[in-house]
Amino acid sequence: MKAPIDFYFDFSSPYSYIANEWIDAMAARHGRTVQRRAILLGVTFSAAELKSPVSYPIKRDYAMRDFQRSARFERVPYVQPDPFPIPTQNAARVFWWLKDSEGETAAAAWARAGFRAFFTRGVPLNEPAALKALAGEAGLDPEAAEQAWNNPMWKERLKRANDEAIAAGVFGAPHFVIDGEPFWGNDRKPQIEQWLASGPF
Amino acid sequence: MKAPIDFYFDFSSPYSYIANEWIDAMAARHGRTVQRRAILLGVTFSAAELKSPVSYPIKRDYAMRDFQRSARFERVPYVQPDPFPIPTQNAARVFWWLKDSEGETAAAAWARAGFRAFFTRGVPLNEPAALKALAGEAGLDPEAAEQAWNNPMWKERLKRANDEAIAAGVFGAPHFVIDGEPFWGNDRKPQIEQWLASGPF
Repeated sequence: MKAPIDFYFDFSSPYSYIANEWIDAMAARHGRTVQRRAILLGVTFSAAELKSPVSYPIKRDYAMRDFQRSARFERVPYVQPDPFPIPTQNAARVFWWLKDSEGETAAAAWARAGFRAFFTRGVPLNEPAALKALAGEAGLDPEAAEQAWNNPMWKERLKRANDEAIAAGVFGAPHFVIDGEPFWGNDRKPQIEQWLASGPF
Repeated sequence: MKAPIDFYFDFSSPYSYIANEWIDAMAARHGRTVQRRAILLGVTFSAAELKSPVSYPIKRDYAMRDFQRSARFERVPYVQPDPFPIPTQNAARVFWWLKDSEGETAAAAWARAGFRAFFTRGVPLNEPAALKALAGEAGLDPEAAEQAWNNPMWKERLKRANDEAIAAGVFGAPHFVIDGEPFWGNDRKPQIEQWLASGPF
């Protein structure tokens, strides 16, 4: 039984969205499963004394172009959301509520729904009304979803996830850990595939 | 006649070294030539209000691992130099002296020699005696090389190269520009290859 792939992501991270579209198929091809972990990049940036790449104007210009090009390269639909980036704690708390109460499949379906809503239709996951409507579209009970993101238990669960990410050395997203080996970035896809296919290199 | 590939690099950049090992063969496969441009990353970091990734301890830990893994992935020999990073203005001035007086081929040979010396044998390019010896090994006149890096003309040429890089939006290395399209990072290799093979995507 091969170890699952840990996948740390933030709902507002374009490269996490793109990776979210290919990681399951790649994992399945190599007999692995994926364990998603929603986190807040702002918290891990801060712990590592980093800032978001898009907070630097010159880097932002490149990044905005690269997000779209990288999506086209992976044949993933992408429409740059505005405003961007957004706070994603409510979407992440719903993720942990689903993951801990229903399991990985339900949580992964919500991750996919949230990513696609934000990065193809600009649905503002930070706005409670929009997030509630999205929960309904995704087949969840909208009231229960709202109660989850307001519940101290799931707020605490997300904090713990951030702490665990920091302890694991996560400073950006997507961040994968496979057999103890860290891979940061959607652009580590070729190295991840080689690792899965033939082991450490 | 297809446009050449602009390749901005710093002699102390591991990902630039790795890219330097594959870019010529890839360019040749697609009927392109490469125009190298030695710069000082410290200057472009500063212009973009960035710092080196290895100046952040948590990111550094990952980067030091990723440099070596990325080199193995590309089957390029790599021995982490120490001290690292180092100031590379003298090596870069020798590059511009060769490029402007003898042409791209001589400059590219020096780039290869400098990168390989630093990243496989830890030759400290920042130490005049070591750099002079390396110039001799690389078939240059060591005295002429030393005169070049002390010559205000080549100091000025490197400054101009840094200014041109900043004007072109360069904030890290390796940075490639192909048909006006910017690609930052050794890890943009698959996208670069697709662009060269089939054009814009």
